[in-house]
Amino acid sequence: MLDVLDQVRAGAVSPADAAGRLSDLPYAEVVHAVGSTLIDHHRELRTGVPELVFGSGKTPEQIAAALRELASRAGGALATRIDPARAAALRALVPGVVIHELARIAILGAPPARPAAAPIAVVCAGTSDLPVAEEAALVAEFLGAAVVRVSDVGVAGLHRLLARLDAIRGAAIVIAVAGLEAALPSVLGGLVDRPLIAVPTSVGYGVSLDGLVALGAMLASCALGITVVNIDNGVGAAVAAVRMARLAAHRELPR
Amino acid sequence: MLDVLDQVRAGAVSPADAAGRLSDLPYAEVVHAVGSTLIDHHRELRTGVPELVFGSGKTPEQIAAALRELASRAGGALATRIDPARAAALRALVPGVVIHELARIAILGAPPARPAAAPIAVVCAGTSDLPVAEEAALVAEFLGAAVVRVSDVGVAGLHRLLARLDAIRGAAIVIAVAGLEAALPSVLGGLVDRPLIAVPTSVGYGVSLDGLVALGAMLASCALGITVVNIDNGVGAAVAAVRMARLAAHRELPR
Amino acid sequence: MLDVLDQVRAGAVSPADAAGRLSDLPYAEVVHAVGSTLIDHHRELRTGVPELVFGSGKTPEQIAAALRELASRAGGALATRIDPARAAALRALVPGVVIHELARIAILGAPPARPAAAPIAVVCAGTSDLPVAEEAALVAEFLGAAVVRVSDVGVAGLHRLLARLDAIRGAAIVIAVAGLEAALPSVLGGLVDRPLIAVPTSVGYGVSLDGLVALGAMLASCALGITVVNIDNGVGAAVAAVRMARLAAHRELPR
Amino acid sequence: MLDVLDQVRAGAVSPADAAGRLSDLPYAEVVHAVGSTLIDHHRELRTGVPELVFGSGKTPEQIAAALRELASRAGGALATRIDPARAAALRALVPGVVIHELARIAILGAPPARPAAAPIAVVCAGTSDLPVAEEAALVAEFLGAAVVRVSDVGVAGLHRLLARLDAIRGAAIVIAVAGLEAALPSVLGGLVDRPLIAVPTSVGYGVSLDGLVALGAMLASCALGITVVNIDNGVGAAVAAVRMARLAAHRELPR
Amino acid sequence: MLDVLDQVRAGAVSPADAAGRLSDLPYAEVVHAVGSTLIDHHRELRTGVPELVFGSGKTPEQIAAALRELASRAGGALATRIDPARAAALRALVPGVVIHELARIAILGAPPARPAAAPIAVVCAGTSDLPVAEEAALVAEFLGAAVVRVSDVGVAGLHRLLARLDAIRGAAIVIAVAGLEAALPSVLGGLVDRPLIAVPTSVGYGVSLDGLVALGAMLASCALGITVVNIDNGVGAAVAAVRMARLAAHRELPR
Amino acid sequence: MLDVLDQVRAGAVSPADAAGRLSDLPYAEVVHAVGSTLIDHHRELRTGVPELVFGSGKTPEQIAAALRELASRAGGALATRIDPARAAALRALVPGVVIHELARIAILGAPPARPAAAPIAVVCAGTSDLPVAEEAALVAEFLGAAVVRVSDVGVAGLHRLLARLDAIRGAAIVIAVAGLEAALPSVLGGLVDRPLIAVPTSVGYGVSLDGLVALGAMLASCALGITVVNIDNGVGAAVAAVRMARLAAHRELPR
Amino acid sequence: MLDVLDQVRAGAVSPADAAGRLSDLPYAEVVHAVGSTLIDHHRELRTGVPELVFGSGKTPEQIAAALRELASRAGGALATRIDPARAAALRALVPGVVIHELARIAILGAPPARPAAAPIAVVCAGTSDLPVAEEAALVAEFLGAAVVRVSDVGVAGLHRLLARLDAIRGAAIVIAVAGLEAALPSVLGGLVDRPLIAVPTSVGYGVSLDGLVALGAMLASCALGITVVNIDNGVGAAVAAVRMARLAAHRELPR
Amino acid sequence: MLDVLDQVRAGAVSPADAAGRLSDLPYAEVVHAVGSTLIDHHRELRTGVPELVFGSGKTPEQIAAALRELASRAGGALATRIDPARAAALRALVPGVVIHELARIAILGAPPARPAAAPIAVVCAGTSDLPVAEEAALVAEFLGAAVVRVSDVGVAGLHRLLARLDAIRGAAIVIAVAGLEAALPSVLGGLVDRPLIAVPTSVGYGVSLDGLVALGAMLASCALGITVVNIDNGVGAAVAAVRMARLAAHRELPR
Repeated sequence: MLDVLDQVRAGAVSPADAAGRLSDLPYAEVVHAVGSTLIDHHRELRTGVPELVFGSGKTPEQIAAALRELASRAGGALATRIDPARAAALRALVPGVVIHELARIAILGAPPARPAAAPIAVVCAGTSDLPVAEEAALVAEFLGAAVVRVSDVGVAGLHRLLARLDAIRGAAIVIAVAGLEAALPSVLGGLVDRPLIAVPTSVGYGVSLDGLVALGAMLASCALGITVVNIDNGVGAAVAAVRMARLAAHRELPR
Repeated sequence: MLDVLDQVRAGAVSPADAAGRLSDLPYAEVVHAVGSTLIDHHRELRTGVPELVFGSGKTPEQIAAALRELASRAGGALATRIDPARAAALRALVPGVVIHELARIAILGAPPARPAAAPIAVVCAGTSDLPVAEEAALVAEFLGAAVVRVSDVGVAGLHRLLARLDAIRGAAIVIAVAGLEAALPSVLGGLVDRPLIAVPTSVGYGVSLDGLVALGAMLASCALGITVVNIDNGVGAAVAAVRMARLAAHRELPR
Repeated sequence: MLDVLDQVRAGAVSPADAAGRLSDLPYAEVVHAVGSTLIDHHRELRTGVPELVFGSGKTPEQIAAALRELASRAGGALATRIDPARAAALRALVPGVVIHELARIAILGAPPARPAAAPIAVVCAGTSDLPVAEEAALVAEFLGAAVVRVSDVGVAGLHRLLARLDAIRGAAIVIAVAGLEAALPSVLGGLVDRPLIAVPTSVGYGVSLDGLVALGAMLASCALGITVVNIDNGVGAAVAAVRMARLAAHRELPR
Repeated sequence: MLDVLDQVRAGAVSPADAAGRLSDLPYAEVVHAVGSTLIDHHRELRTGVPELVFGSGKTPEQIAAALRELASRAGGALATRIDPARAAALRALVPGVVIHELARIAILGAPPARPAAAPIAVVCAGTSDLPVAEEAALVAEFLGAAVVRVSDVGVAGLHRLLARLDAIRGAAIVIAVAGLEAALPSVLGGLVDRPLIAVPTSVGYGVSLDGLVALGAMLASCALGITVVNIDNGVGAAVAAVRMARLAAHRELPR
Repeated sequence: MLDVLDQVRAGAVSPADAAGRLSDLPYAEVVHAVGSTLIDHHRELRTGVPELVFGSGKTPEQIAAALRELASRAGGALATRIDPARAAALRALVPGVVIHELARIAILGAPPARPAAAPIAVVCAGTSDLPVAEEAALVAEFLGAAVVRVSDVGVAGLHRLLARLDAIRGAAIVIAVAGLEAALPSVLGGLVDRPLIAVPTSVGYGVSLDGLVALGAMLASCALGITVVNIDNGVGAAVAAVRMARLAAHRELPR
Repeated sequence: MLDVLDQVRAGAVSPADAAGRLSDLPYAEVVHAVGSTLIDHHRELRTGVPELVFGSGKTPEQIAAALRELASRAGGALATRIDPARAAALRALVPGVVIHELARIAILGAPPARPAAAPIAVVCAGTSDLPVAEEAALVAEFLGAAVVRVSDVGVAGLHRLLARLDAIRGAAIVIAVAGLEAALPSVLGGLVDRPLIAVPTSVGYGVSLDGLVALGAMLASCALGITVVNIDNGVGAAVAAVRMARLAAHRELPR
Repeated sequence: MLDVLDQVRAGAVSPADAAGRLSDLPYAEVVHAVGSTLIDHHRELRTGVPELVFGSGKTPEQIAAALRELASRAGGALATRIDPARAAALRALVPGVVIHELARIAILGAPPARPAAAPIAVVCAGTSDLPVAEEAALVAEFLGAAVVRVSDVGVAGLHRLLARLDAIRGAAIVIAVAGLEAALPSVLGGLVDRPLIAVPTSVGYGVSLDGLVALGAMLASCALGITVVNIDNGVGAAVAAVRMARLAAHRELPR
Repeated sequence: MLDVLDQVRAGAVSPADAAGRLSDLPYAEVVHAVGSTLIDHHRELRTGVPELVFGSGKTPEQIAAALRELASRAGGALATRIDPARAAALRALVPGVVIHELARIAILGAPPARPAAAPIAVVCAGTSDLPVAEEAALVAEFLGAAVVRVSDVGVAGLHRLLARLDAIRGAAIVIAVAGLEAALPSVLGGLVDRPLIAVPTSVGYGVSLDGLVALGAMLASCALGITVVNIDNGVGAAVAAVRMARLAAHRELPR
């Protein structure tokens, strides 16, 4: 901002132009049949993470346009919540797009070099939680972090979790994915000293209320220091984890 | 019922009298200033457990009258949810009543001899859950079962629970009392083979919703075979446990 | 655990090996296209009940792999929540699998000999509750208990329930399955002295809220001693009932 | 309305006056310190039932003014939800007011002669439900109906209810008051052929949610033909019952 | 019941037989592939209204069997919640069944003569509420009451309601069917002196919560004396209305 | 109303006729297979806005009949919530109907001249919110207001919003459409001095609860002076905005 | 903003100074014992309405400091949610403060001259809604609008509302305040063509859920064009109404 | 664990002793009048953070005992949720305890030297949110992190936030505390690249639902990478932030 003002003082830029520059530079308008999307190319500079396309509620054409615009500048782009119908349409619309079916993710191009990040463990309570865990893992990798995957270590068989504890402690950040009563992060929270991000899933039925009980249990956990994201929000957990993991890059982590 | 009908056949009782006996014998009416309470002396014969007075929403006079009527026939009576104001009033109204303050329980007289029951473990996750756990323990003892108390073994410090596992396995039935995210029964459910009754408590704040999240987590537990009672319902858990414990009386339990 | 430590003392096992054995022995990893499932063969030793495969949210391939792995060691395996599409796929993938359509259950092989258990009554309020009741009955039988089935005895026609009361009292444990306002367990709870497990169903509409009102009514029941499981959770009720019924095996039950 | 128009045609009333009369005649304005209350003296003509003052959220002065205005024309007036503090204030402000403490009702003067009505049974599940039941009973009597009171006949002791069935069947209309799981109206609904109004109460704790579960259970009842009012709404049940009971006045009711 | 006991006294029936008769006479068991339905032929004697088959959650075969059993004794039978798929199946299974598509009702045979009943008005707020209103109207007619239908008189155009007020006042009982904010019964409640049954519908979106707001608004109505049934519960409203209308049969109603 | 009464006085109209005219003139009955719709042609006179047909829950035939009746008098008519199936049916039933697919709107004919209105800005947070925003824009235009459309200015890229602030301030009224956490109106509310109508959308997942959180956030906004409509209720926002915009017609607005 | 940039160009202000001015000029920091409040003196310029102090959750000292700071620049300041305890403390801390007890409002000094605004009607359904209505009225007057107060015109006595319709139509904007089922705005919405702001109140009990049902009913209203604010949010309704009323200032309103 | 096993091998410890050591060493039992608390001295070794005493639901005696036991080993101890009554009791029971009233925190002794941590910004939306923000700040300082406090920068006055952005960016981790609609983290999330922990507060009324809407809004935020803790959970946010800040210790943070 001071840059622009300096140019005003120097007379190189008029005040009206400066006001314009301050507000309308850093996005690109993608026009649709009705309305348009404003791609925020500036976001990675401000927040360290590029726009990721949220596929739900968008038409395949809108998703395709956003992926192309983002990849055209950054080299690679990623969209989440790509259900089978959207996946099929995207494959037809965007040559070269890669679909990860279980994780419902589409990737176009290759991500650019990004800041170094310490490794992240993605720990998952049950087989039914795998899609959300895999969404988190793929996004973290897209953003430049190495990922350790640990599957099916729910607390009903505690020894399975204890057996993998060393692998988990090898990472700087832990993402714990669980549905049902979501006791996994509470137990993990008493066993590790890493930042721990809990992701509730909608796995369950009846009183699970599509994940609300898992969410509530994670937020009410007796183990202090757990932070939580929305139900099934693997992508949000990954972005948060990467922000943390960059702080820990190039460090020796204590065991 | 066949008894009454046999007397009808024998002419000892008229049909109209029999109809009356079938319906109105086994309770006693206690008249209040407005309305009355029908004490169900027959309940212990039918269900194995006597009426226990639920103190909430009743006046001290109503509670006192019910305790006296019940104790006059059975020898002893018990009331729950006796808050400090009701406790003070009861002490004045009912000489000899014993108040357990933490558990909010009033007992008048001594319970009669009851069927034998195997021992019950009452396991409690945190210090704040003690009032509910103690309500369960006192009611179970009033109904004739021995109780093993295990306090403050929440999952954030798993070793505390593991250290007490032998004591817990020594009982035939386990009651697990927990608030917050209520992960304790899920972990216990994977470690013991006893019937396990989970009691959610209203301990917590914010998203705990006065115990609803603990309740939901227990019902949604990944550990099969846990059954659940209402929030803070120590008395209900105790009655259920005693019914089960009587089935296991005089048996050698496998470890 | 003492076994392993004794071997350490004897020098037969090194400390590092012992640590390994303590944590990673009792499960088998089944690898999927993405992620893996850890089959907990040790669970029956710890909890008396083997892993039962929860079919919802799993692919037919994942279910098939789990059933095969479990049956390969135990002789028989059971999966729940097998909807018609999964049932068709399983029939193709797993020769010899048996599907119970109404109860949505798949069974592979024959269950091994299990500990003796007293008989269990499965009582069901309405015709629409039959699938959940049947899930409970089949699982209880798979786990080794005899089952008494009593159908369509909702409280709107009280005489239907009274007519079956003797059959119900012949069992050691009662499972009561009901939707709508779920008054059945409250009425039963005043008539029998057996442990009573209430299973709310999602039968109903509008204010039933997919079974939440039935669940709430069961938990708030005026009849003390009822314990409750999640909505439509026939399998959980059966596991709990079998744990209790084993305590009552080989006993003469009082009428 | 035709009356007014006839007077217009006859020239006795001008059109502008007529428009005025049609809209502003039938209420009296009672001015408070801030704002005013419009007493609807016309309501009994339109709906058969006079305004009853809802005391909650009103100052004692506002209640007193409304009672006086209503009683000045009709002879008697009634206010509900008069808690102890308001009761004390009303006694000071309104000489001659009669307070029914358990039912939280204030009555000024004597009700006028009202249309004949068949008798109404007010049936109450537990001692804690008595305040709501008594509110219903007193309002029904104020509106001119005879009331049969039946207390403490909850379904946990079914014989207590069956013993009073004849008394209940002697009334034309049944009001059933219950908290907790509120199974009473479902059982009654299968035993009587009278119109049955269910009143949920806020008696209970935890999952009772201040009466929401009782309300839901009543609305979801498997016994067709039950209608329901708001939680603790004894007065509304009474008004509905009186409307029905007037239809049945001077009739022989079938048993 | 006295009848049976008199026969015992006379020696015509043994006590054991009498006990049997008291409990198992008045229903017929219809056996299904899994489980069975107990048809309660006695219900009309006890409650004045026969069993009506609730179609939701039942298979067409179960519905067909119940309709046939009920019609075989009573002459006619009715089932609700018959969606298009069930309707098609029923037409194939039950020759002569009549389907009312909008109201989702199936009727087999002709209803028997029933007690006289005063006329009932079914008033409906919007076009989208017609299916529920028609369910109420058809059931009331099946049970022997004449019905006055008044459509599309929501409060946004108050004059439409006022224009039909005379028709509504001609009935003894009023059923008001409304979704969205459900203001219709509140306005009607201030204009008529008849018993008024409010039926919330699931018409609406967003904050309507599938009819919960309409239900809540009806229960919280400022117009005293409205009673309410479950969301979309036309059949329940009709049964309640018929019970009331029978009390008013053969009477001159005041206008 | 005074008109009719004057005619009575003059003898030109009888009182009975007048009473009739006052109540039944201003609507037209459209009869369906079952029930009928009362088209309120008078509504635009009373409220300034004609009836708009709410398509959800109506059959295509009902919608077609209502559109034709409304357009026959007013020249043009509009229906909302026209999903693809209804759109296809309408196209076949009503020649000349125009469907706006994204906004799910059908328009028949051309709207009549309407009162002047100041311009309205429709501001939309994300691409997925476009259907609701476009519904608002099309209805506002149908009612005679000019619309400024501003798309995809969610608060995660604040500069996008600031860049369009001048365009927004050029309108007299602002409609802000947003899902997820719906922070857009709070930020806008601190930046503009125009009436601001917030429309929550059902865009989101998990804890979004189909728009309930967006709705709650808008209602709880720290920026005073925001008013809110139902979730996805673009049409309601437009009607409210037009009412306001007419007050501002022909005025110079301060910047 | 352009002003500051012009000064930069002219060399009168350095770029660094300009950046400072842009961000830190328009608020004043009021330091408390812990933390501080940033008074936003600039808000009235941006939004047309000054900061109003929300008293709930603040200490009397914090409220006093904010009122003094705001009044020192603007001449007058207003705080809402001043309960009796805060009112007493404020009277001691701030000489000259005026408390409106029913409305829970404190005013210090006299408001400055503000833009002209057309009159606003504040219409209130019941006596218990008066505090919220009066909050709205006082805030609107503080912001410079004339207010027409209409009390106690709930829909249970429709004629009371119709009698005041002319007074309501004399205002440019209508605020409708109602609790319970909140039918008032729906009825009004069909009778007037003004912008209509609905304010739900927490008046009611049981199913009213502290105003949530009133809020839901207003949002789901069948009368298009109603906008809604938070429960009991009189101040928000007033700010919104004043924004609208300024658009209508100095205009002849059509009747 | 390997240490213990090595000692077994060496014969220095018997297997039985080893099993004991593994489970019961690292906690101290504090016995109360009823029940006991198990102080987990080992927790800081496992998780990096010591036990912090949650004061709510505990008696002053229980809190005092826990603080003393913890401080006796670690040098310092901290308790949260110390309301004024508990604070007064603690001052009497524990000489030297320091109470922070606004933050409701009690500290006994001085914390030991802890691992280095990068600075943390605690940003707070409104004056009413200060208690929660201060709880977070004090706990973070107790755990060894420097804290930057930024108060009253809610989004209704965006310039206040922008003016403090540099201070916020100077920290490694950001905690954002907000009630009402909680838009602050969404706006911050688009402006900074640090890990961002959002703390909803119970500030608000009506639809705020004691903080549930703020919680929901934060979880549903359009700004990816925000993680959330329970309502009013300042202490949990601080523990999570410190875990992250330790990863960033001794690093140069990019601006």
